[in-house]
Amino acid sequence: MSENGVSSRAKVLTIDTMNPTVKKVEYAVRGPIVQRALELERELSQGMKKPFVEVIKANIGDAHAMGQQPITFFRQVLALCSYPELLNDTTFPEDAKSRARRILQSCGGYSMGSYSASQGIESVRQDVARYIERRDDGVPCDPDDIYLTTGASDGIVTVLKLLVCGEGAARTGVMISIPQYPLYSAALAELSAVQINYYLNEETCWSMDISELQRALDEARRHCNPRALCIINPGNPTGQVQSRQCIEDVIRFAAKERLFLMADEVYQDNVYADSCKFHSFKKVLFDMGPEYSNTVELVSFHSTSKCYMGECGFRGGYMEIINMDDEVKAQLTKLVSVRLCPPVPGQALMDLVVNPPQTGEPSYDKFIKERTATLSALAEKATLTEQVLNTVQGISCNPVQGAMYSFPRITIPEKAIKEATDNGQQPDMFYCMKLLEETGICLVPGSGFGQKDGTYHFRMTILPPKDKLTILLNKVKEFHQKFTQQYS
Amino acid sequence: MSENGVSSRAKVLTIDTMNPTVKKVEYAVRGPIVQRALELERELSQGMKKPFVEVIKANIGDAHAMGQQPITFFRQVLALCSYPELLNDTTFPEDAKSRARRILQSCGGYSMGSYSASQGIESVRQDVARYIERRDDGVPCDPDDIYLTTGASDGIVTVLKLLVCGEGAARTGVMISIPQYPLYSAALAELSAVQINYYLNEETCWSMDISELQRALDEARRHCNPRALCIINPGNPTGQVQSRQCIEDVIRFAAKERLFLMADEVYQDNVYADSCKFHSFKKVLFDMGPEYSNTVELVSFHSTSKCYMGECGFRGGYMEIINMDDEVKAQLTKLVSVRLCPPVPGQALMDLVVNPPQTGEPSYDKFIKERTATLSALAEKATLTEQVLNTVQGISCNPVQGAMYSFPRITIPEKAIKEATDNGQQPDMFYCMKLLEETGICLVPGSGFGQKDGTYHFRMTILPPKDKLTILLNKVKEFHQKFTQQYS
Ligand SMILES: Cc1ncc(COP(=O)(O)O)c(C=O)c1O
Ligand SMILES: Cc1ncc(COP(=O)(O)O)c(C=O)c1O
Repeated sequence: MSENGVSSRAKVLTIDTMNPTVKKVEYAVRGPIVQRALELERELSQGMKKPFVEVIKANIGDAHAMGQQPITFFRQVLALCSYPELLNDTTFPEDAKSRARRILQSCGGYSMGSYSASQGIESVRQDVARYIERRDDGVPCDPDDIYLTTGASDGIVTVLKLLVCGEGAARTGVMISIPQYPLYSAALAELSAVQINYYLNEETCWSMDISELQRALDEARRHCNPRALCIINPGNPTGQVQSRQCIEDVIRFAAKERLFLMADEVYQDNVYADSCKFHSFKKVLFDMGPEYSNTVELVSFHSTSKCYMGECGFRGGYMEIINMDDEVKAQLTKLVSVRLCPPVPGQALMDLVVNPPQTGEPSYDKFIKERTATLSALAEKATLTEQVLNTVQGISCNPVQGAMYSFPRITIPEKAIKEATDNGQQPDMFYCMKLLEETGICLVPGSGFGQKDGTYHFRMTILPPKDKLTILLNKVKEFHQKFTQQYS
Repeated sequence: MSENGVSSRAKVLTIDTMNPTVKKVEYAVRGPIVQRALELERELSQGMKKPFVEVIKANIGDAHAMGQQPITFFRQVLALCSYPELLNDTTFPEDAKSRARRILQSCGGYSMGSYSASQGIESVRQDVARYIERRDDGVPCDPDDIYLTTGASDGIVTVLKLLVCGEGAARTGVMISIPQYPLYSAALAELSAVQINYYLNEETCWSMDISELQRALDEARRHCNPRALCIINPGNPTGQVQSRQCIEDVIRFAAKERLFLMADEVYQDNVYADSCKFHSFKKVLFDMGPEYSNTVELVSFHSTSKCYMGECGFRGGYMEIINMDDEVKAQLTKLVSVRLCPPVPGQALMDLVVNPPQTGEPSYDKFIKERTATLSALAEKATLTEQVLNTVQGISCNPVQGAMYSFPRITIPEKAIKEATDNGQQPDMFYCMKLLEETGICLVPGSGFGQKDGTYHFRMTILPPKDKLTILLNKVKEFHQKFTQQYS
């Protein structure tokens, strides 16, 4: 074959011949803005001049990357499990050692290097079950209903995979909040499921209204088969914490309309507002009595990535399966076995999260001090963020009741909207891109999460250290004023 | 609603209303035999009497679970990365510390708890690229073509996902070897792709014959659109190592027939037979000149789970993408971003595997000693397995040239075949189940991997320690003789 012949041999796999469902997937949290932020960092490090000295990333809920310190006890146990020789080291506290021994005893060959059971290490699942029972004031939890996962993401995608079937008007529809965490839309696109949007009510602090759920469901029934309802509480990107009443209403709605409930509760420790408290869907379900607790199908997701620990890189998580049909559960167990097992260090970490040092143990005081410090700093930053943003004309921000984000509404002048649209860009993408280029601040446009037509937002994490967050907020303020002026 | 009304409320998700593609998934390595083995272990521990004192699991390639020790250096670095306080500990060797520092510097906030880039940590991808260049005698490797993965499993499923499209006779077909590692059939079932079986030639030590590839392809073209060819080398479950010539022929075949190549090379260090050597598909491809190296699309998979390290629980791995269309690659990068990132401890471990201690560094001698000991023990056990099994009338076993398994052919008497079939069981499942109940030995029936109709096999790992392996082999021998007698 000639050199020419060679270069003209067409590829087997091209954009036109690849899986079309993959092409439909979008994931804004790591989209073009973040790509550009990385480029800018590289340019800065190469000495290029910019109107800022550093890129501040407030685009992703990644606490350690923003300087949050890990919990000492957790990391001590992980080090002991990684290199058990250290069990002879007298500088490690005894409770860390006994925790490490217990984890290692549950690992094949006393090593985190063994595959675990696909559902997760049994002793870890037992500890998770006891944690849930404590959290939910004694509502019973069976370790057999716990599946450890590779981060919550893995669990969410797996459960959606079980649910999706049918063609045309019988295709499975899944209700998700708008704004949403884009993992949901991405997974639904990949599975070719029908995404059913229900809108959170920005006017009442991003609350969930049953009438809106009903509207979305009724409309969807005309063209698909709605089977599941996803809730994120505390909310990402919106930072609200749902009331007990609201959760009860949602459960009643799900029961009435025969919807499988998926409760994303990865921010369960991240509640800052005095008026708010985390209520797990499971606890509320069981409080509603057997009519509900014996029938409503619910999966709840948790993760090591958020709360006070912020251990994203370990990819730990679990899900609890409630009222799942036994045959389906057997299918789930089979399905997860194909990937062999979740990462064992992540399982170990999940174990420590659900079974931290207890009163009287040597590491208890330090653990409490570290956890409290992290959660109070987050609470403080939640308030700071809301306050500063609300001082800006043209930005309005709901209270950050929980989670790690604010999702303020921004007024974008008509001229800017036109310029963006002429460039084929979403107006809030245009806004965020300009913000990044002028200030080095990396946020995610609201359009990446979904929003009511004609409204614009950005999502900003509250994770940067307080001094940086203050700078960031002031820069956003300045930028917004300048931008508004420029386009008025 | 009455108590009666409650219990009769039908489930949303049932076996009849769940995703039908999930139901088609099978995964023998963790199937019913393994479930039963776990039960037996529980029964033994509860003091129930059995004809054996322990269950010996030779069903899964899980080295540490079988007592293999981790590489000290790897675990030291992981402990240092988990708990960086240890960097002040004078008992750790300097090279472990500098390696840990380098990894931590590549992590956001100097913590393994941060999400990494979705494609993997940049410095790790650089180290992988340099490793591949060394392995392949200087064939260049671009770190941008490396994607870190959650074990090789994750990479394999992801690439298959990109490839699958079309309906009916245009549906993507993927060629896999029979016998195969059942991840492939499971993933294809889940993706509703067409599985195209090509048979390895047992008579010539499980070699790959081009004429058989051609037969399988030609037949498949009548009912689907074959687009990819998967090869496992060294082989699982069959333990063969492919010759350079064979690989060249396969590449030529893929080029001629326009097939996307997927080379599963997770056992690249596991070569025992003197006459064999590992040849990477990439190296052979590049040796064949630009007509091939510029055009043939190839992905190669590697993992921390196998070779001499056997670190399965960390779920580390990488894939190298060669000649992939740029737009498809962008889609791949987007797709992997939905799951955020592979586990960072697994990435760190992958880094150590591709960049182990160098001559002159303090940990070098120990590392070499440990690695050599593990690999020679495996080589010895490979020979032992083949030898003992071949002394048994009715068992015939190809040389275990590489990987971690033998896949001997077993003669099952007609009467046993009939009894199994009457029970709706595969004859080799019947055989393995009896073996388990009578001896406590857990193997996987050949039917879980696929085999020529009318032939029967089991897969057995060579991983148990030598003394246990000897016991196991002798028990298999006895059992086979007894079984044959009983059913003759
Ligand atoms: C609401 C929500 N669910 C799930 C996840 C996934 O987290 P992980 O997979 O790291 O557990 C996130 C991450 O930001 C999230 O915000
Ligand atoms: C041929 C082959 N490929 C891939 C894998 C997957 O391994 P992992 O996901 O642990 O890297 C295995 C595991 O046994 C295997 O044998």
